[in-house]
Amino acid sequence: MGDAALPREHLLIAFFEPLPPGMEEDIKAKFPNVDTSTVILPGGADVPTDAIQHATILVTFTNLPRPEDAHKPRNRATTSSGIHGPPIAEWTLMNWLISSRKFISTYENQKKHHWGGITSYMHGMHDQVGKTVGILGYGSIGRQIGRAASALGMRVHAFTASPRLTPDSRRDRGYIVPGTGDADGAIPASWHHGTDRESVRAFLNLGLDHLVVSLPLTPQTTHLLGEEEFRILSDAVSPQRPRPFVTNIARGKVLDQDALIAALTTGVLGGAALDVADPEPLPADHPLWEAPNCHISPHVSSLGKEYFPRSFDVLKENLGRMERGEELVNEYKRGKAY
Amino acid sequence: MGDAALPREHLLIAFFEPLPPGMEEDIKAKFPNVDTSTVILPGGADVPTDAIQHATILVTFTNLPRPEDAHKPRNRATTSSGIHGPPIAEWTLMNWLISSRKFISTYENQKKHHWGGITSYMHGMHDQVGKTVGILGYGSIGRQIGRAASALGMRVHAFTASPRLTPDSRRDRGYIVPGTGDADGAIPASWHHGTDRESVRAFLNLGLDHLVVSLPLTPQTTHLLGEEEFRILSDAVSPQRPRPFVTNIARGKVLDQDALIAALTTGVLGGAALDVADPEPLPADHPLWEAPNCHISPHVSSLGKEYFPRSFDVLKENLGRMERGEELVNEYKRGKAY
Repeated sequence: MGDAALPREHLLIAFFEPLPPGMEEDIKAKFPNVDTSTVILPGGADVPTDAIQHATILVTFTNLPRPEDAHKPRNRATTSSGIHGPPIAEWTLMNWLISSRKFISTYENQKKHHWGGITSYMHGMHDQVGKTVGILGYGSIGRQIGRAASALGMRVHAFTASPRLTPDSRRDRGYIVPGTGDADGAIPASWHHGTDRESVRAFLNLGLDHLVVSLPLTPQTTHLLGEEEFRILSDAVSPQRPRPFVTNIARGKVLDQDALIAALTTGVLGGAALDVADPEPLPADHPLWEAPNCHISPHVSSLGKEYFPRSFDVLKENLGRMERGEELVNEYKRGKAY
Repeated sequence: MGDAALPREHLLIAFFEPLPPGMEEDIKAKFPNVDTSTVILPGGADVPTDAIQHATILVTFTNLPRPEDAHKPRNRATTSSGIHGPPIAEWTLMNWLISSRKFISTYENQKKHHWGGITSYMHGMHDQVGKTVGILGYGSIGRQIGRAASALGMRVHAFTASPRLTPDSRRDRGYIVPGTGDADGAIPASWHHGTDRESVRAFLNLGLDHLVVSLPLTPQTTHLLGEEEFRILSDAVSPQRPRPFVTNIARGKVLDQDALIAALTTGVLGGAALDVADPEPLPADHPLWEAPNCHISPHVSSLGKEYFPRSFDVLKENLGRMERGEELVNEYKRGKAY
C-alpha cells in the first residue's frame, strides 16, 4: 500500500566469508525494497570505494569504510549490543558450576577410568541456592546472568553507572534476544550506582558470593578492582560460606591482575572465571595460568553459531523499523559510558 | 497456649558422624516439646534397640531399626524428596554448557598455557536459546531443571506416568527448596504421559535437543531407552541443529548402555551426561569411559554441603506440621511409581 513511497535502500554486507546460506535471501524476502550485496574481505580491511559507492546501509563486523567514504552509507550506526547476553551468561554459569560441583575432579577421574568415592564430593561441593551475585554493569549481558542466577535461587544485586531509581529507568531499551534478559529490570533485589571507587567499594561490601564484572574499559574502570577491593569483597562474606568467586567478562585491565593472582593464591577469593586477560593473548609463562581455581578462556564467551544470525536479527529489526519510520534499536550514541 | 496438650516427642537422629554444629540446638529451640538424641553409626548398621527404645520419631539416612524394633518410632515415614532438585539441576546445566561451550578445549589449553584461537570456537559452540528439553519424569528434580532451562530461553516439555490434565494435577505437593522449582507446573510448554513404550516414543519424537531421564528404576523402565529410542530422538531433530544430548540422572539400567555407546559413537546422539552407570562403580575397562562427548560422574550429582541441612529443613517442616496437626509433607506412600 504505502510501499511505493518508501525510498529504495541499498544494503552492503561486509563479511569475512560467504554468508551462511539463506541469510541474504531472507532479507530480500522480508524487505522487498532493500537491494543487498555482499563483499568478502579479510578481517579489518577497508571496505573498497566501489563496493560502498551506492550503499545506503552498511553492515559490517570488522571492516570500516575508508575515511573519505565514511559519509556514504546512511549516517546512522547501530550496534549488535544485546546479542551477547545468552552465550556470555551461559559461559558464566558454566564456570560457576564447574567450580562449585568439582567438575575438574570428575573429568580427570574419567580420563583415568576411575569412578572415585562419594565422601570427597559430600563436603567439597555446594550449590547456588541462597547465594548472592553482584553484577557490576547491569546491561544486556548482566541481565541474562541475573535471569539465570535467579532461576537457580540466587539473589541478584545490580550496579550501574547512572542512578536507576524509577521503574522506567530500569528498563532495557536495547535489543533483547527473545525469551532472555530482564526487560523490566524486575530481577535485582537491590540497585546501586556510581562512577567512583567508593560507590563500587560499598557495592562489594554487600556480602556477595559472586561478583560479575561487566563494565566497559575506561580510564575510570582501569584497575578498578585490586587488593583492597578483593579484601572488602571477601571480608563481607560470612566465614561459613565459600570465599567469593569473581567472573570477568569485561576487559583484563579492569582488574589489577597481580592482585587477583595474590587473592586467589592466599584464599581471599575462592575462584575466578576470566574470559579476558591482560595482555591478550596471555603469554605462556604468565603466572595467571596457574592461579588456583581460575578458569581462563581466550575471549570467546560471546561466540557461537548464533553470533551472526543474531546480528542479522538486529539488522532485520531495524530494517523493519526504518520501513515503519520508527526509532532504531541499538542506535549508537557517542560518549555513553556503562 | 495449646502447648500443654501436645504429646512430648522423642526424636532420634541416626547419623554417620557428629551432626553439624547447631543443628540439634536449632531443633530444640524451635520445637520445645521435642527431646532429641543422636546416635553415631557406621553406614548401613542397624539402629541399636536401646537407642530407639523411647523414640517416637526416627531420622535416619542409611541406618534402619532392627526388624523387631521397627514398630517403635511413630509409624509414619517421610522422605527427603525435593531436596535434590537444586544440586542435580546445577549438575545437569553444567554438563550441557560444558558440551555446548567447549570447556574441555579451553581447560586442556589452559593446562598447556595456550591461549588458543578464536576461529575454532566461532563455529563449534552454540547456546541454549530456543532449544527444547524433554524431561522424562517431571518431579521435583525435573522441575528445577525446567526452571533453569526456561531462564536460558529454552522450551520445556514434561512427561509423567499419570496424566496431568488439570492445573491442580500439575502442582508439586512435595517439599520444595525455597526459591526453586515449578510449584504450579507453569513452566512446561506441553505435558505428556504414559507408562508404555509407545507413549515414551511419541515424546521422544517431539524434536528435543535435550532429553533428561529422571525416572525411578522399575521393571517397566529397565532399558526403556535403547537403539530405536535414540534413533527416534535424533531423527526428530532438524539436521541443522546439533544432535540431541541425553542426560541420565536416574539409574544406569534405565538406558541400554551398549546402545547409548553406539549412538554416541555413530553420531546419532551429540553427547551425554551420566551421573549413573551400569554397573556402579563402572569397571576401569568399560568402553563407556571413552564414549565420545560423554561426561561421567560417580553418582554424586545430588551431593553437597546443603544435603543434610536440607534434610533437616524437611524434618523441621514436618515437626511444625505435627505440632499444628497438619498433613505431613513428603509422607512415604508405598507402591507409587514415577
